[in-house]
Amino acid sequence: MDRRPADTPARIDLNSDLGEGLGPWRLGDDERLLDVVTSANVACGFHAGDPATMHRTVRAAVERGVTLGAHVAYRDLVGFGRRRMDVPSEELRADVVYQLGALQAVAAAEGGRVAYVKPHGALYNTAAVDPRVAADVAAAVAAVDPSLVLLGLPGSVALDAAADAGLPVATEAFADRGYTPEGRLVPRGEPGAVLHDPEEVAHRMLRLATDGVVEAVDGTVVRVRADSVCVHGDTPGAVRMAVRVRAVLTSAGVDLRPFVDA
Amino acid sequence: MDRRPADTPARIDLNSDLGEGLGPWRLGDDERLLDVVTSANVACGFHAGDPATMHRTVRAAVERGVTLGAHVAYRDLVGFGRRRMDVPSEELRADVVYQLGALQAVAAAEGGRVAYVKPHGALYNTAAVDPRVAADVAAAVAAVDPSLVLLGLPGSVALDAAADAGLPVATEAFADRGYTPEGRLVPRGEPGAVLHDPEEVAHRMLRLATDGVVEAVDGTVVRVRADSVCVHGDTPGAVRMAVRVRAVLTSAGVDLRPFVDA
Amino acid sequence: MDRRPADTPARIDLNSDLGEGLGPWRLGDDERLLDVVTSANVACGFHAGDPATMHRTVRAAVERGVTLGAHVAYRDLVGFGRRRMDVPSEELRADVVYQLGALQAVAAAEGGRVAYVKPHGALYNTAAVDPRVAADVAAAVAAVDPSLVLLGLPGSVALDAAADAGLPVATEAFADRGYTPEGRLVPRGEPGAVLHDPEEVAHRMLRLATDGVVEAVDGTVVRVRADSVCVHGDTPGAVRMAVRVRAVLTSAGVDLRPFVDA
Amino acid sequence: MDRRPADTPARIDLNSDLGEGLGPWRLGDDERLLDVVTSANVACGFHAGDPATMHRTVRAAVERGVTLGAHVAYRDLVGFGRRRMDVPSEELRADVVYQLGALQAVAAAEGGRVAYVKPHGALYNTAAVDPRVAADVAAAVAAVDPSLVLLGLPGSVALDAAADAGLPVATEAFADRGYTPEGRLVPRGEPGAVLHDPEEVAHRMLRLATDGVVEAVDGTVVRVRADSVCVHGDTPGAVRMAVRVRAVLTSAGVDLRPFVDA
Repeated sequence: MDRRPADTPARIDLNSDLGEGLGPWRLGDDERLLDVVTSANVACGFHAGDPATMHRTVRAAVERGVTLGAHVAYRDLVGFGRRRMDVPSEELRADVVYQLGALQAVAAAEGGRVAYVKPHGALYNTAAVDPRVAADVAAAVAAVDPSLVLLGLPGSVALDAAADAGLPVATEAFADRGYTPEGRLVPRGEPGAVLHDPEEVAHRMLRLATDGVVEAVDGTVVRVRADSVCVHGDTPGAVRMAVRVRAVLTSAGVDLRPFVDA
Repeated sequence: MDRRPADTPARIDLNSDLGEGLGPWRLGDDERLLDVVTSANVACGFHAGDPATMHRTVRAAVERGVTLGAHVAYRDLVGFGRRRMDVPSEELRADVVYQLGALQAVAAAEGGRVAYVKPHGALYNTAAVDPRVAADVAAAVAAVDPSLVLLGLPGSVALDAAADAGLPVATEAFADRGYTPEGRLVPRGEPGAVLHDPEEVAHRMLRLATDGVVEAVDGTVVRVRADSVCVHGDTPGAVRMAVRVRAVLTSAGVDLRPFVDA
Repeated sequence: MDRRPADTPARIDLNSDLGEGLGPWRLGDDERLLDVVTSANVACGFHAGDPATMHRTVRAAVERGVTLGAHVAYRDLVGFGRRRMDVPSEELRADVVYQLGALQAVAAAEGGRVAYVKPHGALYNTAAVDPRVAADVAAAVAAVDPSLVLLGLPGSVALDAAADAGLPVATEAFADRGYTPEGRLVPRGEPGAVLHDPEEVAHRMLRLATDGVVEAVDGTVVRVRADSVCVHGDTPGAVRMAVRVRAVLTSAGVDLRPFVDA
Repeated sequence: MDRRPADTPARIDLNSDLGEGLGPWRLGDDERLLDVVTSANVACGFHAGDPATMHRTVRAAVERGVTLGAHVAYRDLVGFGRRRMDVPSEELRADVVYQLGALQAVAAAEGGRVAYVKPHGALYNTAAVDPRVAADVAAAVAAVDPSLVLLGLPGSVALDAAADAGLPVATEAFADRGYTPEGRLVPRGEPGAVLHDPEEVAHRMLRLATDGVVEAVDGTVVRVRADSVCVHGDTPGAVRMAVRVRAVLTSAGVDLRPFVDA
């Protein structure tokens, strides 16, 4: 978040997508992830997460003191919110308000509260570059509660739009992704886009947390601003990596805590 | 609501189902209904009411000072929530919390707030007689906000369960329905179940509002406790009837106002 | 269709979108439209048209000898299939096969058969210009039944792809749309894009049917190849226009018949 | 099916529910199950099985010569078709026609064909005892193609209704379920309802295939008519059991083949 001074690098948040099941279906190992992360991006029913699944996810997060975020998405269960859609502003804003409110009530019923919003999938990617979509997301969040934090990519228009709308913002790095010398993610499909070695990933994130830098694909060292590190849990390998990131950070004395209080 | 003494019959609420469109589809004449009623049962997305439709409905209600209620339903768009479903408690409670929260956020974004909950269709009918379902609905509402009022049929187990859960309750009569000598609705399909004459209906509701009684199908006069009168707007005839009910009540000096403040 | 010689202009088909209701909702006046058109584009459940609605639509069309076409769409009920979506080929093909097969079975159960396919909304627009999407639609239709006709815009890549896939094709004009001197539709939002006068529209379509030309927005006369004329029925005005088109064509002795047999 | 004489017990079919994923979600180990069974009950989109998943499932079944059946269900993805719903006849018939047709087209596109229908979950259970629901299912199947076989519980009203509608029928036993002395399934929740030992289950099914009998919970031997044995694959233990059933039957020389040709 903007309010923390840049010179406290030894503190960072770990976030992950959770509650991405639907009815009888499960995706990822939520139980183990919840012992790793400090913030949970909870699916709100549009790309995953029926109401009962949301309750279970929120309950498990609240029990562990994990901060709750609304993982809002395009309405696309079959495509898991990964398919770009041209949604007019009125509809997109309404969709964000709806999902956010639904999670807020689930949180209230489980003794927690929603502290931040992170768009999912195609909405995340589009809001990162499309000012109209970014403004719609920000306006929707601000209309519900302007104290909610928007979590996004540093330098993205999503965060610019959120700041313009008066929302606090927080930035995230992706544990398993390579960076360009400009501090951007290497596009998927290009060499070095995705990292697979848990040990390497964990030590990159340690350096990010302590020094605020990562080594880019060309070997240069680039400053990356991150209040949080996004880890995945949708495969056994991803869970192992997430566990390792937490272990290395903890061993090095990094203070793992939510970028916003639960 | 329970808190009003029984001897103030010259005050009553008018409620109606609103926002029952979906995407390109409309149902009923919301604009005209909103000039008739004092409370709006707003569809929350499970039987009708996509998020953009919800926003439009809520905005129009807030502009007119109409109180907002969450019209929660089984998840059944194609069946319009009219088909009975065996939904386990965990799922049913979660579905109610989800819909209620979604509408609360829409209301917040439009400068209003949700004041009550009224189950829709098959859920209304089932909650009226099935203690398990009634308890699930009540528990869900109470978990979100125990100051929310549950609106239901007088004598129904839905209201008993709500009271048991600590919720305030309000009772409603149906303007276009006949009553048995026991003060219950004549079942649909039986003679006298549905009334069609706007003038007759309006004067029945006037008598209900002023004297607390209706004439039953057998001609006897029966006491009916109602904080609100439910009117419909899904056909031109229904709108005309609703308009006439309001006109007759207003002319007679009945104080038309929400059973709970907006 | 390709097989008819270009010199029989006094014969044409009238097509319209039908069955675009969902559950309790209706859109347009199907009953009246079915007395106007010779081909019915039947919604298949993805943008509109639940199975019971499909049955009613197909039954009414079969009773009148109206030819059945599958109006396939993106999976987007709330957006009515009008929102562009990036659907990968495997999924898009499968979606088209699924919808087509569903309508085929409904047709079989009602004593009819599906004779053609016309994409709907955003899928129509995208398939008209995007070769990948056009090829996916064509491949899906061909995989189910290569004798099905693809109905589309003359000169569109949708028809090219269909022809490449071995499908027969048919072309359509839009009754209420203006044309450029190049024989393309004037884009919506530009002057002359949409025509409103039923008389003018009817006589334009008569000229199209008899002479194979329309007057473009700049007054020049342009050749337009059309096996069918698309009329709308979603508003009372649209129905009146459709009725007038049929009346004028019939009075002038134009042979109104399906571009493919029922 | 009725047409096989009762004295060829050494031939039987193995069926299982397949393709029960949705979008990104998977359920069960379809690949391994397809090497076990001779008939695949393929989810058709209402309780599971988006179109792309259906294609993959059908393709894999066709490659192995496994016969295809339509696993039709109530429209209830979140509840996985396990929740009883009161669906009026017109809607239920239409839902069955729709799902069946969709699978037929997928099968056609993949070079196969649908040979039978087996209701799923709550629809299976309701059709087994409710004559109205059973008649709706049968009428829908017969309207699409009266040569399709209905697979169901021996003695169920589902099979009676199918026979009345002129459909061929086939009966199934459940590998992992206990039987009453009357030859019915021990209701879930009662002692002996579900069997867990793969070896025991496999040898029970061998006895069923060769002698037409199973040992009931009280130790008596009861005649059970079964053209097919239903095995499950939704857990690793279930897959092991299914594999063992096949191995024991094959070793004993039982002819494993579809009750109807692919």
